[in-house]
Amino acid sequence: MSDYRAPLSDMRFVMDELAGFAELSAQLPAFAEATPDMADAILDEAAKFTEQVLAPLNVVGDKEGCQLTAQGVTTPTGWKAAYQAFCEGGWNGITSPVDFDGHGQPETLGVAVREMAASANLSFSLCPMLTFGAVQALLTCASDELKSTYLAKMVSGEWTGTMNLTEPQAGSDLALIRSRAEPQADGSYRIFGQKIFITYGDHDLTDNIVHLVLARLPDAPPGVRGISLFLVPKFLVNADGSLGARNDAHCVSIEHKLGIHASPTCVLAFGDNGGAEGYLLGEANRGLEYMFVMMNEARLGVGLQGVALGERAYQQALAYARERKQGRDAVSGEALVTIDKHPDVRRMLMLMKSRVEASRALAYVAAGLLDRAHAHPDPETRKQQLMLAEFMIPLVKGGATEMAIDVTSLGIQVHGGMGFIEETGAAQHWRDARITTIYEGTTAIQANDLIYRKLMRDGGATAQAVFAQIGETVEALRASPQPALQAIGTRLQQALTDWTEATAWVLAHAKNDAAGVLTAAVPYLHLAATVCGGWQLGRAALAAARRLEDGSGDARFLKTKITTARFYADHVLPQAASLNQTVQAGGAALEGELL
Amino acid sequence: MSDYRAPLSDMRFVMDELAGFAELSAQLPAFAEATPDMADAILDEAAKFTEQVLAPLNVVGDKEGCQLTAQGVTTPTGWKAAYQAFCEGGWNGITSPVDFDGHGQPETLGVAVREMAASANLSFSLCPMLTFGAVQALLTCASDELKSTYLAKMVSGEWTGTMNLTEPQAGSDLALIRSRAEPQADGSYRIFGQKIFITYGDHDLTDNIVHLVLARLPDAPPGVRGISLFLVPKFLVNADGSLGARNDAHCVSIEHKLGIHASPTCVLAFGDNGGAEGYLLGEANRGLEYMFVMMNEARLGVGLQGVALGERAYQQALAYARERKQGRDAVSGEALVTIDKHPDVRRMLMLMKSRVEASRALAYVAAGLLDRAHAHPDPETRKQQLMLAEFMIPLVKGGATEMAIDVTSLGIQVHGGMGFIEETGAAQHWRDARITTIYEGTTAIQANDLIYRKLMRDGGATAQAVFAQIGETVEALRASPQPALQAIGTRLQQALTDWTEATAWVLAHAKNDAAGVLTAAVPYLHLAATVCGGWQLGRAALAAARRLEDGSGDARFLKTKITTARFYADHVLPQAASLNQTVQAGGAALEGELL
Repeated sequence: MSDYRAPLSDMRFVMDELAGFAELSAQLPAFAEATPDMADAILDEAAKFTEQVLAPLNVVGDKEGCQLTAQGVTTPTGWKAAYQAFCEGGWNGITSPVDFDGHGQPETLGVAVREMAASANLSFSLCPMLTFGAVQALLTCASDELKSTYLAKMVSGEWTGTMNLTEPQAGSDLALIRSRAEPQADGSYRIFGQKIFITYGDHDLTDNIVHLVLARLPDAPPGVRGISLFLVPKFLVNADGSLGARNDAHCVSIEHKLGIHASPTCVLAFGDNGGAEGYLLGEANRGLEYMFVMMNEARLGVGLQGVALGERAYQQALAYARERKQGRDAVSGEALVTIDKHPDVRRMLMLMKSRVEASRALAYVAAGLLDRAHAHPDPETRKQQLMLAEFMIPLVKGGATEMAIDVTSLGIQVHGGMGFIEETGAAQHWRDARITTIYEGTTAIQANDLIYRKLMRDGGATAQAVFAQIGETVEALRASPQPALQAIGTRLQQALTDWTEATAWVLAHAKNDAAGVLTAAVPYLHLAATVCGGWQLGRAALAAARRLEDGSGDARFLKTKITTARFYADHVLPQAASLNQTVQAGGAALEGELL
Repeated sequence: MSDYRAPLSDMRFVMDELAGFAELSAQLPAFAEATPDMADAILDEAAKFTEQVLAPLNVVGDKEGCQLTAQGVTTPTGWKAAYQAFCEGGWNGITSPVDFDGHGQPETLGVAVREMAASANLSFSLCPMLTFGAVQALLTCASDELKSTYLAKMVSGEWTGTMNLTEPQAGSDLALIRSRAEPQADGSYRIFGQKIFITYGDHDLTDNIVHLVLARLPDAPPGVRGISLFLVPKFLVNADGSLGARNDAHCVSIEHKLGIHASPTCVLAFGDNGGAEGYLLGEANRGLEYMFVMMNEARLGVGLQGVALGERAYQQALAYARERKQGRDAVSGEALVTIDKHPDVRRMLMLMKSRVEASRALAYVAAGLLDRAHAHPDPETRKQQLMLAEFMIPLVKGGATEMAIDVTSLGIQVHGGMGFIEETGAAQHWRDARITTIYEGTTAIQANDLIYRKLMRDGGATAQAVFAQIGETVEALRASPQPALQAIGTRLQQALTDWTEATAWVLAHAKNDAAGVLTAAVPYLHLAATVCGGWQLGRAALAAARRLEDGSGDARFLKTKITTARFYADHVLPQAASLNQTVQAGGAALEGELL
């Protein structure tokens, strides 16, 4: 077991140097008060809270898990108090609108706070994450009446929210949803159906839970165009805001999972006793569309979980490697050194660190783009920033979560045999990470989104814009007098060429060779995420070199940013070459009988 | 949960076409009776036993685990009966010498039987695996008296064996062992010390357990040259072979682990009550040397576990993908197809299949080399085959176990959300696989062994011999009239060039740049294992094409061998290019302060 320390130096560096946080308050009137000073104070408080309150509960939650009792789901020891403290600290509504008592902070700050919460305790952090998603859905499509009844209490955390999409026969394929909604004379609906994999579908943290449920109206067209979104509270709400009758929505079982044991994953039964009262959100048959509005933030949020688990695993592995003595120093010959002196352990630690920092940088940059996409005064800039952000989101979600599986596995490996013992705690991060490539859209779904929506919808124009930006970074790196930066520039140039070639292949084949392109899709996503991670680390190295020259900032930290970028360039960026080959191989190997 | 079916077609194909099993009985007098007919019968029986007896207990063992009671460690429900049936079937001594009532079968057949046992139930299979290791150690260095007292009962499985190396402060670094042995007047020794991570260190399957223990004599030199090997039985053995007094060797705790729950991992205390009676094996201070004699088989055995878990995960994922309906066929547009029709699911399944089959082929080929190294009548051939086998062993151990982590993870991914639910069973394979890159020497230790022993001891001559053999396979593939085989040949040629370049770099830097080479070691091992896997699949494709032309064998199976080799060539072999770049980057990125 190890403590968690929020990586504030890197978070601030990325926010300021890569994601353009410092300029937000000047650029965007909506965030005029989100000054760097304010952000500093918030980050310090978030670090304190997540380190001291949430992190110690992470192992408790893993061991105890949740229980389904006759009264509903109970959370592990300490969960209620931590949740109350979380809400009292205002963390639940950190980026929610001030109109509904949120703090109105930009996403670029929100990602850092959310990363800390997920690092400290992923299972815990899922509850506010789901509530945040539900809040965004209500902001998008709820009537004023529903907003005024529900939103402020969800922003404060007094009530939590859930997302009810999946059914046993409808996972990645939501066209198969069967839950149904019967219109009532009073304008409400009766909801019937069973939903599975509902995160925090029931719990004992709050008095009420606000379920958002996808279901079909009687006259709905088949498929995804016939799905509507309903709000179904656990307890009905009286006109005066007090709680009324228990609604017909019940948790009938919880899952026994590989990881995130303390996050209750519920089977919810709607309408087993006559129908659950629900209210239509927005217009009929547009439910999936509303879901997609908040998909960007939700997928960014899951990508952040990858960053968070990688960071936690790295911290724990580093702490162990600095203490554990074993073997002789291969270079100096010194007997019995701590294992962080052994080249392969250094390699593993640097692989963890560089991949985590690359993913963090890309995630925060995407958040910066989203803030501008939402709040920039110039509509053209908003549009362009949104296109870039939406292009990045599948790379963040797909890339950072796959990274997390690898990096948390390395965390176990650094511990040797101790890593396999549950009490060490390294294994929990790996188990917890394993869901992140699946929920909110599997890696394959991210890859399809990247190619068939984000890449093709403008014929590759956004991709070209990204290539041009990477090209500028390459030029700056190669123009540097420092050999390390030049070396990074050379590797990044090669990787960019690989990505550019693979992109041309994908664009040329996307229409006439769907099987080939879909076979190439996940390798293409890995290629894009690998290059974009190297790009951000290249920018980081440039910024660090600039600051070192200025003499501003912590020289040791800045030097490690350059070393980390160099390591990534040598150990990760070369994968672009092989991924390019695999992408261009397409589906040739998959014809005929295979299996 | 899914059944296990032994992949007999591929096992037989690999044994016959790649590992040269069919020629063994003619070439090697020691294996004159190991005819293909005999092997067929044994494989069929092994398949039946592992599928019907061992496989159904795999989940039981995972759920129940082992318990430490006042009477010692108890195994899960059904373990005792299965162990008895295992021994009665003669499986425990399948490759042990007939002189001690073994079946004297070649390793090339033994690997197939061991793979089946590990696929069916890894936790169970560890018990005979450890006994097998102890048997080999006794064959190497025990006195005739000790052999006659212990060996036959260990070969039959009436008693089991353990290997006691690790201590809390001495894991990968055995120089730090502190356990000590005090000579007694009667020629025996009193053993004192604590050993950890002792697999099946205690259990309720047999009446006695034979512990092999590394410890220091009072006058031993420090470090690894002062370690001796002792036999310490759980119960002393009377002159008539009956069991005598309980020895002072006790299990004081068992570990709570990420996986292999049913394999008890013990802390053993020797001598807490006056000293455990033990007997010196072989000469004093040569304990580690004796351990290394059986290291080849032990590491091959762990590599096989990687193959076994990958195979089991693949079978389960394939069965699920053929049943689960979700989404529309991307090419035909057919609505609601089973997910094995989706290109990315096919990609994942083929990645699993091709990597498993590549690893199996390499492992069985290594076994074929070992058989000839041990039993070929010509001493020069024995020596040359041993050099080749020893070169391959770290590739099998390091490569197949790292493969298993990736492949069992893909097995979860194919299941989507269901993969994260423990009852599905996909997660167990992943958890079980996680130890295989750690025990019997971590991946880094395999990589160091590959470079600093196997590659450098003859200045790269063995590597050159392997390159030449791969070159011949390349030529044969390129000379094929079939485009698929030509394509494989082209990729294999490129990958061979990458490996050759990387090898030249390693040899040039090994002496003067230890830090750089040790940083490159694991990437180098991955490179070598990747190329050798592609080589074996290339040979498989050639053999399959030949058989298809002859019209001998199952045409469907033979066609899939070609497709599988092609897939591996497109999706795995290109990694050689990036690994070569990373190897040659050496330690440049690891200078200075990093972390």
